[in-house]
Amino acid sequence: MQSFENTPDERTKYLLQELVKHLHSYVHTVRLTEAEWNTAIGFLTRVGNITTPHRQEFVLLSDVLGVSMHTVAVNNEVHRNATEATVFGPFFVNGAPLIENGGDMSGGAPGEPAWVEGTIRGVDGEPVPGARIEVWEADAEGFYDVQHEGGRVYGRAHLFADEKSEFRFWGLLPTPYAIAHDGRVGDLLKATERSPYRPAHLHFMVTAPGYRTLVTHVFVRGDEHLDKPTKDAVFGVKDSLIYDWSRHSADEPTPDGRDLQGKPWASLHFDVVLAPGQAVDYAALME
Amino acid sequence: MQSFENTPDERTKYLLQELVKHLHSYVHTVRLTEAEWNTAIGFLTRVGNITTPHRQEFVLLSDVLGVSMHTVAVNNEVHRNATEATVFGPFFVNGAPLIENGGDMSGGAPGEPAWVEGTIRGVDGEPVPGARIEVWEADAEGFYDVQHEGGRVYGRAHLFADEKSEFRFWGLLPTPYAIAHDGRVGDLLKATERSPYRPAHLHFMVTAPGYRTLVTHVFVRGDEHLDKPTKDAVFGVKDSLIYDWSRHSADEPTPDGRDLQGKPWASLHFDVVLAPGQAVDYAALME
Ligand SMILES: [Fe+2]
Ligand SMILES: [Fe+2]
Repeated sequence: MQSFENTPDERTKYLLQELVKHLHSYVHTVRLTEAEWNTAIGFLTRVGNITTPHRQEFVLLSDVLGVSMHTVAVNNEVHRNATEATVFGPFFVNGAPLIENGGDMSGGAPGEPAWVEGTIRGVDGEPVPGARIEVWEADAEGFYDVQHEGGRVYGRAHLFADEKSEFRFWGLLPTPYAIAHDGRVGDLLKATERSPYRPAHLHFMVTAPGYRTLVTHVFVRGDEHLDKPTKDAVFGVKDSLIYDWSRHSADEPTPDGRDLQGKPWASLHFDVVLAPGQAVDYAALME
Repeated sequence: MQSFENTPDERTKYLLQELVKHLHSYVHTVRLTEAEWNTAIGFLTRVGNITTPHRQEFVLLSDVLGVSMHTVAVNNEVHRNATEATVFGPFFVNGAPLIENGGDMSGGAPGEPAWVEGTIRGVDGEPVPGARIEVWEADAEGFYDVQHEGGRVYGRAHLFADEKSEFRFWGLLPTPYAIAHDGRVGDLLKATERSPYRPAHLHFMVTAPGYRTLVTHVFVRGDEHLDKPTKDAVFGVKDSLIYDWSRHSADEPTPDGRDLQGKPWASLHFDVVLAPGQAVDYAALME
């Protein structure tokens, strides 16, 4: 690809030369017709039209084509027993409320209360006290707070592992949800008979100096979507991230004695293992 | 790629499966970082933002990456001595004025008058009387009519080969022009030290029943851009499409006796050879 020969930045040159090689190879392999090329241009144009500061249809497109997950994979290779990474998704918000250990991140959103506790350790079992933990999830209707007008904050918080490297908080038993499918990405899913659903999950991001920032989810064993052939619209599921969430009747006392006023509740034990490496500022990255 | 397994339409399934394969291979080959992925998303978002019914930045992007030209290539394989095809470009307009043979397609736009004549034949030399010829070009300032507000029509027309398969018209000696480079595609060209210029050319589209519709340009031998390493921002040049345009002083009589009021003029002989095949309605295709 002589056309990028003069690019001063070596990495940019390489990225563009390989991009052109792969795109040309695609056109050649499928013998793309001019009508199909035109359909692709129209598709991208409409993806562009629907994208606003509040809706990122290009990210969604990257997600449903598995490009996001593949990017996660090449940047977070499995490292011994470290917890596996998965997609960041579009619903993280920088500056979520700080809660104490044992606090509630649900913000009063509807759903079954869930007690989540665990430890943060390195691959050799060493404790990581003070690790920063960001958690976020959808409510029982399958919506994140940012999907509503009005700016109410719920289902997100940050906290810190205590001096024994432990953490604990109240959240919600996660609920499956459909990704936005009223745009071109939705049309794509429809044309290919794919489900827009993501299995229920709780997002975690764990950061500590000297460790690779971990962006991951905890899925819920038994979720019906996990049993389907296309179990996740964005390919984020890894077997190692499917956990047993215990279910408790209303009479069972809660771990911290909290009175749930007659509601049944769930609980999860989730031990995080961080790989050695660099902390990555995903919040800044995704802006 | 199991995810598209259920796609009812076989061609759609194949196109998507191969797309995913090629995209994943790209991410894997270059080991795309998450920051680079994010830059790509931001780039596409801005390409989407600038795209309107009057400006197609995705087409421009496809053009400067050589994807458009590659698509032309796989759909218009060289057929014996048939005239080669090149990019359609964004400046064709359906319903350009009809002119008689010998008429003027310049619409009074500034530029050096140019007499263009030739024949339309098939690969065995058979005449193709009545072939429909669309021609369009930029003015001496490098702008097509549609790039101005106000809707004035110039530099475009259609005519028909006569009963002897010949055509002739007045146009303008073509002028090099820069593609729109005030958007992200312009940034890309700048970052890679590529020129936004296209060498001077006159667009032709020739249609006749039983023949493959020919979309092509005639370039101008001696154009300084043709000698540069990246001779055309959109990779449209083929050696077989570079023609000698004769230059004539103001005193030289014009072929049809037209009085050019003391202006020098140019002339081109361009014999078109059509490959057998299907007529393609590019106008409808590009809508
Ligand atoms: Fe999510
Ligand atoms: Fe042009």
